[in-house]
Amino acid sequence: MFLNLFTECSPSPQLPGLWRHEKDVTSEGYRSLEHWSSLAKRLEAASFDALFFADTHGVFDVYQGSWAPAVRHAVQIPAIDPVLVVPIVAAATKHLGIAVTYSTTYHQPYQCARLFSTLDHLSAGRVAWNIVTSYLSSAADNGLGEPLAHDERYDRAEEYIAVVRALWERSWDDGSVVRDDETGLFADPTRVRQIDHEGRFFRVRGPHQCEPSLQRTPVLYQAGASTRGIAFAARHAEVVFVTMGEPKSGARQVAELRRQAAAHGREALKVLQGSLVIVGRDKEEAKAKGKLLAALADKEGELAKWCGWTGFDLAEYQDDAPIAEIRTEASRSALGMLTRANPDRTWTVSDLRYFVSMGNRPRRRNGLFGTAAEVADRMEEWMDVAGVDGFNLLPCPPSSGVADICDLLVPELRRRGLFRKAYDPMERTLRERYFGAGIRRYDAWASPVAGAAGPRPEADV
Amino acid sequence: MFLNLFTECSPSPQLPGLWRHEKDVTSEGYRSLEHWSSLAKRLEAASFDALFFADTHGVFDVYQGSWAPAVRHAVQIPAIDPVLVVPIVAAATKHLGIAVTYSTTYHQPYQCARLFSTLDHLSAGRVAWNIVTSYLSSAADNGLGEPLAHDERYDRAEEYIAVVRALWERSWDDGSVVRDDETGLFADPTRVRQIDHEGRFFRVRGPHQCEPSLQRTPVLYQAGASTRGIAFAARHAEVVFVTMGEPKSGARQVAELRRQAAAHGREALKVLQGSLVIVGRDKEEAKAKGKLLAALADKEGELAKWCGWTGFDLAEYQDDAPIAEIRTEASRSALGMLTRANPDRTWTVSDLRYFVSMGNRPRRRNGLFGTAAEVADRMEEWMDVAGVDGFNLLPCPPSSGVADICDLLVPELRRRGLFRKAYDPMERTLRERYFGAGIRRYDAWASPVAGAAGPRPEADV
Repeated sequence: MFLNLFTECSPSPQLPGLWRHEKDVTSEGYRSLEHWSSLAKRLEAASFDALFFADTHGVFDVYQGSWAPAVRHAVQIPAIDPVLVVPIVAAATKHLGIAVTYSTTYHQPYQCARLFSTLDHLSAGRVAWNIVTSYLSSAADNGLGEPLAHDERYDRAEEYIAVVRALWERSWDDGSVVRDDETGLFADPTRVRQIDHEGRFFRVRGPHQCEPSLQRTPVLYQAGASTRGIAFAARHAEVVFVTMGEPKSGARQVAELRRQAAAHGREALKVLQGSLVIVGRDKEEAKAKGKLLAALADKEGELAKWCGWTGFDLAEYQDDAPIAEIRTEASRSALGMLTRANPDRTWTVSDLRYFVSMGNRPRRRNGLFGTAAEVADRMEEWMDVAGVDGFNLLPCPPSSGVADICDLLVPELRRRGLFRKAYDPMERTLRERYFGAGIRRYDAWASPVAGAAGPRPEADV
Repeated sequence: MFLNLFTECSPSPQLPGLWRHEKDVTSEGYRSLEHWSSLAKRLEAASFDALFFADTHGVFDVYQGSWAPAVRHAVQIPAIDPVLVVPIVAAATKHLGIAVTYSTTYHQPYQCARLFSTLDHLSAGRVAWNIVTSYLSSAADNGLGEPLAHDERYDRAEEYIAVVRALWERSWDDGSVVRDDETGLFADPTRVRQIDHEGRFFRVRGPHQCEPSLQRTPVLYQAGASTRGIAFAARHAEVVFVTMGEPKSGARQVAELRRQAAAHGREALKVLQGSLVIVGRDKEEAKAKGKLLAALADKEGELAKWCGWTGFDLAEYQDDAPIAEIRTEASRSALGMLTRANPDRTWTVSDLRYFVSMGNRPRRRNGLFGTAAEVADRMEEWMDVAGVDGFNLLPCPPSSGVADICDLLVPELRRRGLFRKAYDPMERTLRERYFGAGIRRYDAWASPVAGAAGPRPEADV
């Protein structure tokens, strides 16, 4: 079983209002390096695979057509840049992997390649890149890229991956860095080459600015759930992060992903289910903790978050407007969820607003609530029925929830032999932890990089 | 006296060939976090003001029209991203400042603002931004920005500064972050505002994605030496990094800078002279160390560096071509330097190639060579005659040169009362170290941020 902790560099990661919990330290700590060092050390002591950083650019300003609700409830704002927290986590640990979200929409591939090579050097091969293509229109309002249609974003992402992989995998040969004191040759330029990429979206000559790191290509994470997103994941991702409603229907989604991946010879990819976790010492404590969600969760914050995600402003419609009459992608998908709960009812905007404001409640089936034994049972069910390989755990509440996971849940999983008791010293890089000792490089198992080799420097001289 | 150590995240910072020195650890260490942690701790023990990171995007490919010479001698390639080393330095220290180069050409101001706010939060107010506008055409070959004319780059930089300062200084009021457990109000949106910038180069709405950090605006460094560069520094910079030939002529440059700064009410700005340092225990050891430069310095690497800087390919011309007949900015400036050395000679490309390949030798007058006492004398002369406030020291050789500076030179400067023996606990932020306890914010001494306040969210609701 693979375990990540899911977080964001924000006061109340994914859980509006929960920063108010009496044991909370995240709401101040998210911007201090001691906070991240100490979290990282705790996760390493529990032999977690990785700390996973989500991220957003811009601000959630869809609900009520304003960013005021997001600011009031710290919904992804304020949020510092997680890329800069990665080195702190790396410095505080020796084994813990670090997966960070980085958008193909806001940065040039040449920069992206240098950034992840740097992180992979500094962490000695422990970095993963969560590839995202999406954006908020408020990011475009801040000068970050022009809005692209969904499919066009994926076309661009395909080309982006080709460019960064070429920089990572075929610009510097193994052994190109010589460091020969005698002759004064640092690197052999005949073993370094340009990539000469000329595509629809990018023109990148190379060579790559960094020498090869242990993994060369970071472990590739992806979380797309759309048709294009699943196709993209099947072709490129090594670890897919899903958030499914319940194990049985999830099984179909996972099977489809693996079927498509197998067509590319990549059935070994790992699937992690994202789950909110509340663990108690006993049923009573778990129940009491569950009540925190209700008592502390902020309804307006949940609305700001959901409307920001979906781009669908629930404040724009009359209370009694039937959702079926609203023709947006988000309303169709929400209606599907509500109809599964009760097919006979005419669901209105007011109903949807209620469910959204209750946060994860309508999807509580996918949550992990209870005693450590109950939660472990539930995790086994997810693995058996849905066929997932592990979990991306969202701690609730943000601070003391981490302690509950590490002190209560992990010992139970270890007792059952579901989760490692210590890191395997043979698995030095994060990729080896997922795919076995010796599998350090992406092209060692996933697929060779496309395209011919570019010219060596002699061609220019 | 203010002291920085100058470095790059590259195997042989600024000194091609010197990675071959027997005590060198930089050529491997530049990509490991332990290297940077340990350097940072050593500098903090010597109560340095800051570690200064230079940087380049792209590759030096002007000399011989090829990047092969740069790759052979590790001239700015390989080079990891220094921005990601800043958090490691912050985590390893409590007082040391960290100045990092970041280009206004390759990143959007909205991203830049978030990045430096993040670093300022994580370091608790110890970050400086070395503002650069320049770029290599090879960066454009890699999809990083379109080449702009020199003056246009400065026009763009002026607008850039206005945008990032607005995000840092007037998007979130003091006290806007409330963290009120009772009411559930995290931040008060009526005290947060958009910046609504609409300019020639940028359109940025805001609000800023980060809450205010201790310094809000990082300490602003600048190193421009052109007419536009000096005007820009006089208007914006708090610390100006110069590399002058010798103290007497340097005095004129510093006086002109201060005169222009005074016109903006900013005469308090600090000027740091960049100097290569070789210190020995006695004259003999200093002499012997000096010989290292000659023995280990790589001539082809020096040519690759100089031609990359200037954009002027010295391999393109016949040996006996008179420099006076070449009409480029770089050749004119090089000819000026050579003519000052001997006005009667007809200087040729072959002569210039020789001097460039000898590295810093023709400008050795600006270097700091000798015993600790001799170097300290020379530093006093620089401060008295040229009117500089301190130094950005380039250690030579890269690794053991740091030890020489910390173990030999700093004790001598302390003995003379020229340099602090310990950090002043009242000066918590880097800006306070430069301008005095209590001066934490840029607008506390430099200049108010331009532009009117943007709308508060109520305007949208």
